[in-house]
Amino acid sequence: MKSLTEYLTFNTRQRKELVNITRNLDEIIIASKIQEGLCLVSAMHITAAIWVNDEEEGLKVDMMEWLELLAPVKKDYRHHRTGEDNADAHLKRTLLHHQVILPITKGKLDLGPWEQVFYAEFDGQRKKRVIVKILGE
Amino acid sequence: MKSLTEYLTFNTRQRKELVNITRNLDEIIIASKIQEGLCLVSAMHITAAIWVNDEEEGLKVDMMEWLELLAPVKKDYRHHRTGEDNADAHLKRTLLHHQVILPITKGKLDLGPWEQVFYAEFDGQRKKRVIVKILGE
Amino acid sequence: MKSLTEYLTFNTRQRKELVNITRNLDEIIIASKIQEGLCLVSAMHITAAIWVNDEEEGLKVDMMEWLELLAPVKKDYRHHRTGEDNADAHLKRTLLHHQVILPITKGKLDLGPWEQVFYAEFDGQRKKRVIVKILGE
Repeated sequence: MKSLTEYLTFNTRQRKELVNITRNLDEIIIASKIQEGLCLVSAMHITAAIWVNDEEEGLKVDMMEWLELLAPVKKDYRHHRTGEDNADAHLKRTLLHHQVILPITKGKLDLGPWEQVFYAEFDGQRKKRVIVKILGE
Repeated sequence: MKSLTEYLTFNTRQRKELVNITRNLDEIIIASKIQEGLCLVSAMHITAAIWVNDEEEGLKVDMMEWLELLAPVKKDYRHHRTGEDNADAHLKRTLLHHQVILPITKGKLDLGPWEQVFYAEFDGQRKKRVIVKILGE
Repeated sequence: MKSLTEYLTFNTRQRKELVNITRNLDEIIIASKIQEGLCLVSAMHITAAIWVNDEEEGLKVDMMEWLELLAPVKKDYRHHRTGEDNADAHLKRTLLHHQVILPITKGKLDLGPWEQVFYAEFDGQRKKRVIVKILGE
């Protein structure tokens, strides 16, 4: 069994932003030389998520607007009594889920034709990390 | 370490449909002869999901109606400017999450008493794939 | 390759409750002596979930209230025709997702600075189980 652990760091320009990380993951997997395995990609900060979906500008806007409807920015969250102002970001992370497992087959990411992997930032403009951990051989 | 990769193909009669795939997975796992492991089940198309819940007709209708409330069919998604009409299906997949990891213990799926695994189709009536990837020994 | 399987049992005082299980998982992982691996934590009952987020009282209340807004307790779910009264709990589990994979690096849980792992009970006051399954070496 082989394993590999990498950490990606993001510092987005916008407070909320989607970053396509599929190519970063491709490179890590090729460098690992693992042929068959499972690759965990997990946001280590609790106001960010990982999303697997389509690289289509309209859909990305739809998704972010939909999240805002279901988990809106609001002043009166209890969490804000601590001085924070990002409770919506915790809920948005929850809705999207903060991690995915990607299959590796014959040395490559084994994704469907339209699957792209995104880092979903909901409280950015500062350094935040994602762990990439591969198990396989 | 052993690994096994299979692809299931679905072509549902209805555009939206839940398909219980627990038995398919049982068979794959028994054939793999893997005794202890983790089994990834992941929808490869971005308008389908995997759901682990109860095989109860009423609840299945409740769940699909609830998804329609939270991520409704609508004309005016930006994604539809590309000619598509399935933005709601992308959001429904997001809400359910598109994958699960199933534990394998002593050669069998190690699920709770009521846990059943469903392929959740939100834009079907065409061939779509699910990857099943097992790591273990 | 090594593997380890444990089952945690919960019997919460409240019907809906969040239980921080990070320390329980730490102990299981240290006892396993697995240095590099992936640890599945999955609720085996279909009215409970696993949530990775902040140990902050206000946020925990915000999250439970938000779930109640999106997946409310209601009489008229079809599932209740079976005699059950917990359809909302099935939907809340779905929204949070019922499982996470935790990375193990150098013999320890490799979580971000604020990540805590919670068992999220939505229909408790009776014995319910969570499987913890580690693969690694």
